[in-house]
Amino acid sequence: MKPGLNIVKVGGAVVEDAASLAAFLNSFAGLGRASILVHGGGRRATKVAGALGVASSMIAGRRVTSAQMLDVAVMVYSGVGKQIAAGLQSRGLSAVSLCGADLAMVRSHRRPPVEVDGLGTVDYGYVGDVDRVDSAVLSCLIGRGVVPVLAPLSFDGKSLLNTNADTIASCAAMALSSDFDVTLIYCFEHRGVLRDLSDEASLIPHIHAADFEDLKASGTIGCGMLPKISNAVSAVSAGVSRVVICRFDSLGEGTIIER
Amino acid sequence: MKPGLNIVKVGGAVVEDAASLAAFLNSFAGLGRASILVHGGGRRATKVAGALGVASSMIAGRRVTSAQMLDVAVMVYSGVGKQIAAGLQSRGLSAVSLCGADLAMVRSHRRPPVEVDGLGTVDYGYVGDVDRVDSAVLSCLIGRGVVPVLAPLSFDGKSLLNTNADTIASCAAMALSSDFDVTLIYCFEHRGVLRDLSDEASLIPHIHAADFEDLKASGTIGCGMLPKISNAVSAVSAGVSRVVICRFDSLGEGTIIER
Repeated sequence: MKPGLNIVKVGGAVVEDAASLAAFLNSFAGLGRASILVHGGGRRATKVAGALGVASSMIAGRRVTSAQMLDVAVMVYSGVGKQIAAGLQSRGLSAVSLCGADLAMVRSHRRPPVEVDGLGTVDYGYVGDVDRVDSAVLSCLIGRGVVPVLAPLSFDGKSLLNTNADTIASCAAMALSSDFDVTLIYCFEHRGVLRDLSDEASLIPHIHAADFEDLKASGTIGCGMLPKISNAVSAVSAGVSRVVICRFDSLGEGTIIER
Repeated sequence: MKPGLNIVKVGGAVVEDAASLAAFLNSFAGLGRASILVHGGGRRATKVAGALGVASSMIAGRRVTSAQMLDVAVMVYSGVGKQIAAGLQSRGLSAVSLCGADLAMVRSHRRPPVEVDGLGTVDYGYVGDVDRVDSAVLSCLIGRGVVPVLAPLSFDGKSLLNTNADTIASCAAMALSSDFDVTLIYCFEHRGVLRDLSDEASLIPHIHAADFEDLKASGTIGCGMLPKISNAVSAVSAGVSRVVICRFDSLGEGTIIER
């Protein structure tokens, strides 16, 4: 039987609020098995960029990362990672905060300009699409009882690149699934996938990958959740044992997505 | 014979200028033996703090670190560390950027309020005085061919604290000197210790610890260099093999301070 491993992704809204971050870290410290933490930090990056006079531009709902914005993102995400490492150490865990360039842990290539309907060719700038997560280094750290804390920054061999934290979490989960029984946990402000966003009691406790198309067609799941669940279905199809979507202060209790 | 190890401290003025940083990293990558890099970043922290509306206050020539200034320092120093790690990786070295909280690498205690002549009791805020550098973790990384990149942030078991980079470098050098033949390198914009600051040819190639008091008394060394040389003399007295003071793009060639 493969040893268990949690890969927990926490977003910017949680890590940028001191009380939410503390509640999340308490829950994380209580998980009681080998874990990796992947964090965001985009809202703070936008705020700091604004204060420094660096323009944030979005095209078709996606951030464009200029060289100046990349500098800000590196600074903000790295700082968030170090604060999380300190928070885990203070809760008795051994942790190390890393980005894609550390030990070339997350290798990527810069996204080429893409065609966007009605907008022509769009260059999203210093954004990396992940090629490879170094599972050997992560396994080595986990084997020594260390929690790797990963920032949403990848490395193309020359430069750091901005990379979506959900993607880094799912790539890490898939890369480690041959050696570990991986639970990939996405946490946010709700209890899980809800039938009715205004009613926390409307939680859908289980989703089987095979039922996803039917659920989507029936309109049972709100459109905001569809990309997350679609990613989760891909992850379980690629060897991740299960994906849990849950509240940031109750990790592990929520909607479980399995094959 | 103990294996060789360089511990190189580079200040904010070098790391915050892209061309100087590139020249420094080229020189660092050419050192050709196990190395640790300790960096500053204070000038950028002051600039970012200003843009974010966080006041920088100095008392008796030392920065006071408020909670807000600590947040900025963590963000800026961590970002500098990640950029340096990326720069070393792109030069073919394996590097990992760490702060004092990562694996509790640099333990400290918060500096208690101190009496300052004419100013009464001064609380410098979130500033850490180093208790212990974890030489076992650093040795383990070095043994695997990894360059540890250390930010000037220590950890008191609860929080990150602002800590002088020179101090972290000399504490690491002393902690590792029982297992390594340590060369501690302080680099800056001059060739080394000069008799005349306006004349790079006036380099003093060697200083023996025993001659330091005489040199000081004779006024041969400008007062700006005295604290650095005094620290160097303490380091060699505590087991560090030699201290080199040199230009950031010519590491190793400069003033050598030995017992």
